[in-house]
Amino acid sequence: MAKVVLRRDRRKRLEQGSPWIFRSEVDRVEGRAEPGERVEVVNHQGHFLATGYINPASQILVRVLSYRQDEPIDARWARLRVEAALNWRRRFLPGVSSCRLIYGEADFLPGLIVDRFEDVLVVQVLALGMERLWPLVREALLEQVAPRGILLRNDVPVRQKEGLPLEVKRDYGRVPERVDIEENGLIFGVDVWRGQKTGYFFDQRENRSAIAPLVSGAEVLDVFTHIGSFAVHALKFGASKVICVDQSGEALDLARENVARNGFAGRAEFYEANAFDQLRAFVDQGRLFDVVILDPPAFAKSRQALAGAIRGYKEMNLRGMKLVRDGGFLVTASCSWHMHRDLFLDTITDAAVDARKILRLIELRGAAKDHPVIHGSEESNYLKFAVFEVRSRG
Amino acid sequence: MAKVVLRRDRRKRLEQGSPWIFRSEVDRVEGRAEPGERVEVVNHQGHFLATGYINPASQILVRVLSYRQDEPIDARWARLRVEAALNWRRRFLPGVSSCRLIYGEADFLPGLIVDRFEDVLVVQVLALGMERLWPLVREALLEQVAPRGILLRNDVPVRQKEGLPLEVKRDYGRVPERVDIEENGLIFGVDVWRGQKTGYFFDQRENRSAIAPLVSGAEVLDVFTHIGSFAVHALKFGASKVICVDQSGEALDLARENVARNGFAGRAEFYEANAFDQLRAFVDQGRLFDVVILDPPAFAKSRQALAGAIRGYKEMNLRGMKLVRDGGFLVTASCSWHMHRDLFLDTITDAAVDARKILRLIELRGAAKDHPVIHGSEESNYLKFAVFEVRSRG
Repeated sequence: MAKVVLRRDRRKRLEQGSPWIFRSEVDRVEGRAEPGERVEVVNHQGHFLATGYINPASQILVRVLSYRQDEPIDARWARLRVEAALNWRRRFLPGVSSCRLIYGEADFLPGLIVDRFEDVLVVQVLALGMERLWPLVREALLEQVAPRGILLRNDVPVRQKEGLPLEVKRDYGRVPERVDIEENGLIFGVDVWRGQKTGYFFDQRENRSAIAPLVSGAEVLDVFTHIGSFAVHALKFGASKVICVDQSGEALDLARENVARNGFAGRAEFYEANAFDQLRAFVDQGRLFDVVILDPPAFAKSRQALAGAIRGYKEMNLRGMKLVRDGGFLVTASCSWHMHRDLFLDTITDAAVDARKILRLIELRGAAKDHPVIHGSEESNYLKFAVFEVRSRG
Repeated sequence: MAKVVLRRDRRKRLEQGSPWIFRSEVDRVEGRAEPGERVEVVNHQGHFLATGYINPASQILVRVLSYRQDEPIDARWARLRVEAALNWRRRFLPGVSSCRLIYGEADFLPGLIVDRFEDVLVVQVLALGMERLWPLVREALLEQVAPRGILLRNDVPVRQKEGLPLEVKRDYGRVPERVDIEENGLIFGVDVWRGQKTGYFFDQRENRSAIAPLVSGAEVLDVFTHIGSFAVHALKFGASKVICVDQSGEALDLARENVARNGFAGRAEFYEANAFDQLRAFVDQGRLFDVVILDPPAFAKSRQALAGAIRGYKEMNLRGMKLVRDGGFLVTASCSWHMHRDLFLDTITDAAVDARKILRLIELRGAAKDHPVIHGSEESNYLKFAVFEVRSRG
């Protein structure tokens, strides 16, 4: 097996838990390794650190597969990894039938996402090395989960950086146009073939529950409602009315359907609009809400985009908090991992200064428990979810 | 009313939410104000910002009472503040009969702590200005809570900095030697007269519940068990055995009693020992546990003590994680606010590197919801509580 020798002066990122070896950390590669093949990672003294798969075309040269030198990467390995991932969900999400089943690096299966929508699995293979291992993991999933169908949602731009084609295809069994899932006792219809990412954002499951104490009898503004997941939860928890905003007509159609299917049709309104424009329009109209929810897509997809993203988060939260009735609540999230937690919180502070508000922080949460976080690996810790009480300052 | 004029070049801490004006931020005081008296805070241009009470003997020159220039600080003000604090607990802690009822600045009653132990209130008055306002708040509490007794636990060193005497005294009604409280369906006997702080740490209520998925059938080590609150919860959630360590014999007596009263007597062991020594002894003996809980008192009570505290946290967590069986869990907390969240997490990373462990972060929490956090005021955001899965790295 080829050896990837790390530089003497590197930070000990691998020992801290990071499962990624960047090219800049590597002194040399000894021996030959085909793209996607398995290699050994050693420190500058030649001490074994880990095995992983290599991709010379990627900035992430190696992704760690095992910390044991003698562990074969075979069917048994795949079976144990899948079993461990299932056991984690059984322990931390008892009774949950739809969730993220495998969360890549954080489940020690680097480059692989598997979301379970009841008995349908939706998969993203994000790296060349995992593309080669997928058949092993697929077998283990068929054996242990016995799904009705598997859909590959490999239409993810990052695959291009890995030299992989973009495609959406059925990989096993039957995959219906629309899958109905249950979450927190509610039903959501999900478009697994064409929806954003895999069709649904399981990472906010526990955060959706966390709005329960805020919304009883409340008028709620749900911005970036997508397919209505926060809106339907708010209605279940007793909101008198929810105003849903999204710029995607298809997402709103599904949101409308999801609201109706859960029996809340009369209590929701839908605006197909740009979120920033709609927020400004409501501010200009002098509208006020008891609760404002802001759950935007990632504004900062790269470090270069960060400055603009900060301005976007500030402006959005500024408008959002202006729309909250005195003593009401702002629910605000960010899924850009470049927007680190403290930066996100500071940006909201800036908005509060300008809006002359005093905020009390009620919840500061991350992703749900089907999204484990490798400590020492920032990448897996991307979601910030905060709930504030908003009061006017003079 | 005297005016406290802030410096032109200050950071806008007050506008960001901080309820404290430090002496270093003040340009001058116009007019005369007795210690503890009410003053107006204005910016360098004379614009009104807030009213607060002043104490020239303290580094914190002014604590904010109101952001409204015309708000009288009177019986009605006290009534509204107490009512708001009670409503917050009704909303966020429904059915909870014992909790922190007033959390000082974060309930807009600066310098006042009121903990409710069923029908007994235990109070700490931490600042001169609040000492003068206490009679107003006391009336409001008697009216709205109708407690059986009120105990002043004014044996807090910080009072000396405010020029106030240290004392413990009954302030109203009857205060028994031992108060029984209910938490998460369990009974705890609390020594409100002589226990640490007010006798019990309500800030960990939700965190104690958070260990439920970890401990079923587990052997648990509970270090700094105090009066056994985590231990009793672990036993309730199915732990097969809990080993409790504390260096206070009195605390352990109460822990033993609390374990027995909840019906778990046969499943707990008690070690009266220094935590660091006992951890080392278990490491030397090669002992392993399924779950290790570390809930120490504040190691860093001042910024000067921080370097030593970091070493302490690292060493403690290093020993703690060595004692966790592969795939088991480390539950670790810090209540030193000088030990900021990221520093705390980095210190645990350092320990993991040395112990050759890979950690997965399962929970990162703060204080319970009866401890609101003023956003922009670090002081109220002191508690870090983290749950990790611990795996060996090769």
